Amino acid sequence: MRYAIILGNLGNTCDRFLSTGYKDQPSKETMLQQAAAIEGVEGVELVGNWDISSDNVDLMGELLEKHGLQCVSIIPDHFAEKRWGYGALAARDPSVRRQAVEETARMAEAARKLGCPLINIWPGQDGYDYPLQADFRQERLWIEEGVGSLCRGFPDIRFSLEYKAKEPRTHSYLARAADTLLVAQRIGADNVGVTIDTGHSFVAGENVAEAAVILQMNGNKLFHMHFNDNYRSWDDDMIVGSVHLAEYLELLFWLEETGYQGWYSMDQYPYREDAQGALRESIEFLKALQRLLDGKSMEEIRELLKHGDAVKSTGWLRRRVFG
Amino acid sequence: MRYAIILGNLGNTCDRFLSTGYKDQPSKETMLQQAAAIEGVEGVELVGNWDISSDNVDLMGELLEKHGLQCVSIIPDHFAEKRWGYGALAARDPSVRRQAVEETARMAEAARKLGCPLINIWPGQDGYDYPLQADFRQERLWIEEGVGSLCRGFPDIRFSLEYKAKEPRTHSYLARAADTLLVAQRIGADNVGVTIDTGHSFVAGENVAEAAVILQMNGNKLFHMHFNDNYRSWDDDMIVGSVHLAEYLELLFWLEETGYQGWYSMDQYPYREDAQGALRESIEFLKALQRLLDGKSMEEIRELLKHGDAVKSTGWLRRRVFG
Amino acid sequence: MRYAIILGNLGNTCDRFLSTGYKDQPSKETMLQQAAAIEGVEGVELVGNWDISSDNVDLMGELLEKHGLQCVSIIPDHFAEKRWGYGALAARDPSVRRQAVEETARMAEAARKLGCPLINIWPGQDGYDYPLQADFRQERLWIEEGVGSLCRGFPDIRFSLEYKAKEPRTHSYLARAADTLLVAQRIGADNVGVTIDTGHSFVAGENVAEAAVILQMNGNKLFHMHFNDNYRSWDDDMIVGSVHLAEYLELLFWLEETGYQGWYSMDQYPYREDAQGALRESIEFLKALQRLLDGKSMEEIRELLKHGDAVKSTGWLRRRVFG
Amino acid sequence: MRYAIILGNLGNTCDRFLSTGYKDQPSKETMLQQAAAIEGVEGVELVGNWDISSDNVDLMGELLEKHGLQCVSIIPDHFAEKRWGYGALAARDPSVRRQAVEETARMAEAARKLGCPLINIWPGQDGYDYPLQADFRQERLWIEEGVGSLCRGFPDIRFSLEYKAKEPRTHSYLARAADTLLVAQRIGADNVGVTIDTGHSFVAGENVAEAAVILQMNGNKLFHMHFNDNYRSWDDDMIVGSVHLAEYLELLFWLEETGYQGWYSMDQYPYREDAQGALRESIEFLKALQRLLDGKSMEEIRELLKHGDAVKSTGWLRRRVFG
Repeated sequence: MRYAIILGNLGNTCDRFLSTGYKDQPSKETMLQQAAAIEGVEGVELVGNWDISSDNVDLMGELLEKHGLQCVSIIPDHFAEKRWGYGALAARDPSVRRQAVEETARMAEAARKLGCPLINIWPGQDGYDYPLQADFRQERLWIEEGVGSLCRGFPDIRFSLEYKAKEPRTHSYLARAADTLLVAQRIGADNVGVTIDTGHSFVAGENVAEAAVILQMNGNKLFHMHFNDNYRSWDDDMIVGSVHLAEYLELLFWLEETGYQGWYSMDQYPYREDAQGALRESIEFLKALQRLLDGKSMEEIRELLKHGDAVKSTGWLRRRVFG
Repeated sequence: MRYAIILGNLGNTCDRFLSTGYKDQPSKETMLQQAAAIEGVEGVELVGNWDISSDNVDLMGELLEKHGLQCVSIIPDHFAEKRWGYGALAARDPSVRRQAVEETARMAEAARKLGCPLINIWPGQDGYDYPLQADFRQERLWIEEGVGSLCRGFPDIRFSLEYKAKEPRTHSYLARAADTLLVAQRIGADNVGVTIDTGHSFVAGENVAEAAVILQMNGNKLFHMHFNDNYRSWDDDMIVGSVHLAEYLELLFWLEETGYQGWYSMDQYPYREDAQGALRESIEFLKALQRLLDGKSMEEIRELLKHGDAVKSTGWLRRRVFG
Repeated sequence: MRYAIILGNLGNTCDRFLSTGYKDQPSKETMLQQAAAIEGVEGVELVGNWDISSDNVDLMGELLEKHGLQCVSIIPDHFAEKRWGYGALAARDPSVRRQAVEETARMAEAARKLGCPLINIWPGQDGYDYPLQADFRQERLWIEEGVGSLCRGFPDIRFSLEYKAKEPRTHSYLARAADTLLVAQRIGADNVGVTIDTGHSFVAGENVAEAAVILQMNGNKLFHMHFNDNYRSWDDDMIVGSVHLAEYLELLFWLEETGYQGWYSMDQYPYREDAQGALRESIEFLKALQRLLDGKSMEEIRELLKHGDAVKSTGWLRRRVFG
Repeated sequence: MRYAIILGNLGNTCDRFLSTGYKDQPSKETMLQQAAAIEGVEGVELVGNWDISSDNVDLMGELLEKHGLQCVSIIPDHFAEKRWGYGALAARDPSVRRQAVEETARMAEAARKLGCPLINIWPGQDGYDYPLQADFRQERLWIEEGVGSLCRGFPDIRFSLEYKAKEPRTHSYLARAADTLLVAQRIGADNVGVTIDTGHSFVAGENVAEAAVILQMNGNKLFHMHFNDNYRSWDDDMIVGSVHLAEYLELLFWLEETGYQGWYSMDQYPYREDAQGALRESIEFLKALQRLLDGKSMEEIRELLKHGDAVKSTGWLRRRVFG
């Protein structure tokens, strides 16, 4: 398991009531230092415009090297500028759609320069808010068109589609694991896959481990993982393991079992918390689960799954956790 | 729009606290009479064991003819006998899986005899309840295997997979529209498709109209529709339109727009209500929406969708409903 | 029914991904003009710091008069400054708690000057995010202490507590109607009551009409109403009636039936929409329901409630809406 | 901590699709034997009609004594007979309301005979299903009237009102902790209080520990506790700790902190599981948390709550669980 974090998680975060955010914004240099200082973190994800643009690729490359960090993914900005307010890849306005593809292409070029293998596409503005507002059929085709052209244009880069059922729109087009796999399949390229964000999966009502299995069963299409926790009704982006435990263990089992090769990357919004501490806690929690999931445990879980006895499974977990 | 009902909706229904149900059980003859007496109802769906078995096909055929009703679908029993308690099509026990396929095959033969074109498969027991209980990968393959063999065995019958995220299991394998389409695609037969139950879609957090569009965009795979309403958090199986309105209208628009050719069938659980009245109300509500959705309205909605202006869409709906 | 809007709903609104907001910020003058131009709007609510502070009370009073608008409530800022990040009325830091009370007192004085009868307290930051984070017992007492002192200090002003189960915290202290009534009862003042925001009530899983009845049954403690719509899982702050209809009608019936005397005020977040249009639509929807709820309808609903027959109630609504 | 179980949890359980249930029904004697054989179980709860009626009180008393079990509560049947289908304590039909009170009184008499101190009232049928169906005001008064008369009639028995937001009705009158406390307060008797079922609280969107604190802050009105787990969206009645952990720990802390004196009673529906095993697992989980919550932990949590630092709280929990 190789751990990463989204760099911006170390920075200031705002909500709709407090647009200035709850904290002060540290410098990129400080954030990279902090990231590197979290035991186990080997990589970072960069967000377009927030962290990286065509203008600062070389500088960012030097900073990453200085701190011994890999760029494991770039998340192009499809959500944080006014021009994306009515959609980016699925915008009705063809010039906005073109800009969304161009911005993504610029980030793919930056990724190449940084030796980063993956573009994580989260088209947060591509969706709709109201009944009778959207032409689902047409707009979904536009997403496929845009991502498809990027996949063909950058065959050496993996494009991973991150789904989320809602927010900032009341309905997103890439909403759940299977919907998004379907989009990837329709695009039909080897270098398109899906990102699971554990919190998005909880909110979607999925069992996240099963979502991972579905993606892996269909051509190893789980390209990337974002970790965070929540209370299941909203993307609270909390410390991993602060609310849930059993489902993370089941997820880690299946990631191993289905040969997931990607990063374990933290994606949190520590609005009011010490950000470095919040990210460190998440990684410490995952490490604890990883230790628990040794070869013997893997074998025991395989055996449990053959029988499907909930009392035995629950008892195994209890004894394994509490001794 | 051709309307149908699930025959058993006219009968007694129970819950986990009152296993005898809230009402008395009428005879099949009475239920068929009541079904035929609902203005607009032309067809019924029959549930295996509850309504139909290999033994009473001819009798049921005569009764249907007598009451001028078509059998529009048969729902094989994969959920209402103790033997299915640990799964039917996805049961660990190979003899149970075989029984599930055989039972479905018997219903497909009954369908042939009755001139019924569709088997609606709702594998309610195929899922799991607890973390670390299920081998998702293997069990999902068993569903595909079972349904695939049926599709090949009965090329003249359409098999429509009805999804539902939960109940009676905490997690069902056929949970959402796209998951289920994916299963259909993996089976790879022309005669396998998907049933949308509007209430199941609400509970899954889908926008039901978009779910329909996704199925239709991918090979016209929306084979069948079940209608009912709920408060979004559980499959309350209420009268259509008792809670929602805008989303049904959007759904009807898109069913028309994407060329849906199937039935509009009611699937309710009027636990305490006059069942015939509850079903009649649902159909009257859908008829009212249908009248509203005349050619002019269809054209106006198409125009609204080109602009995506929520104020205009909402205003159009308000004026169309309230005059 | 007297209609109002929250003035800021006409302005720019942001979310956590787009801190600049989706639109441009109009001037207060423009917003007041737009408010006055919505047919039926007689009053506005002002938000502390955003719209009103001790410094601009007279100016705002003149502007309101010029546009023929009443100030129907002031919402003190307990949520939009960094100092409230760890709570306002329930902050652990006594100086922050004191500031929260002082800020509220300043707004109560402004209200007096403006002839505004009501302070709407929404303590959005008073709550917690994580397990094992909060001393519920102590912090709830602090809220009661702060509001209690305000009630005694301003006996001529009504303090109305607005509940919301979550956001921006994962858990708010004033979460649901009855929790909040309980706080009001413990404070024990005549001039403390509760605000229902229809969207908050939907998200809390309440039936909003029943929530209103509970407040009215217990000393007419429903002091104020905020209207907006959503998809039930989050405070989407949408146009009233864009998603729901039956529940608004039931609510309006019971507001009338229980003698609610307060304003019908719109509280929306038209992130991307023409704000004036979005607010106008909400009011037009409520007016349409109001027309439907004439004396004859009131009488018919009273009769329906005596029998509790869901088929009859649903049918009545369908015929009343669709004719 | 004294542990109990609901006796019927050891028996067969059905759902709306499989009215015969998934298992066979053991004899009462067998169930009592099994209950007594679960390490730590000292008491049982009996359900009216299912386990106990006026006719078998003496026999049940002997059986309990034989197995060394106390009767810790009786749950009168207000939900499992057709006559309660339109409500029991809140039924429109005055004769049904009278029957509900009489049935409860009979159970109170049985409780007296058995030395059982508590009647747990779960009025599952008292609620409504549809908009415009219920006269909330009147029906809520009837509940208060019925329970009030029982409280006065049996001053030596504690009547504990168990809330649940929905099921079998789409809306229950006793829905959440504070609503139900309000009903208890209006009744105004010392011997009326509230039962928290952890699963009901999860589904209601409450933080269960805070719900307990609210009840205890207001006159120690938490009379009884039912334990089970679920996935938050429905009353799955699963093994305690199979899904959640942190929230149970927080709950146990606050039960201790606020001086809760009642039983820790399991209320599960092990539809398909070995029932005795499922109940034993729940108790073993609670015992493990209890061991974790020693005096030192209690003190450490008190200290954590003074600071409200989510990183520290989460880290404490992680280290305490995983070592």
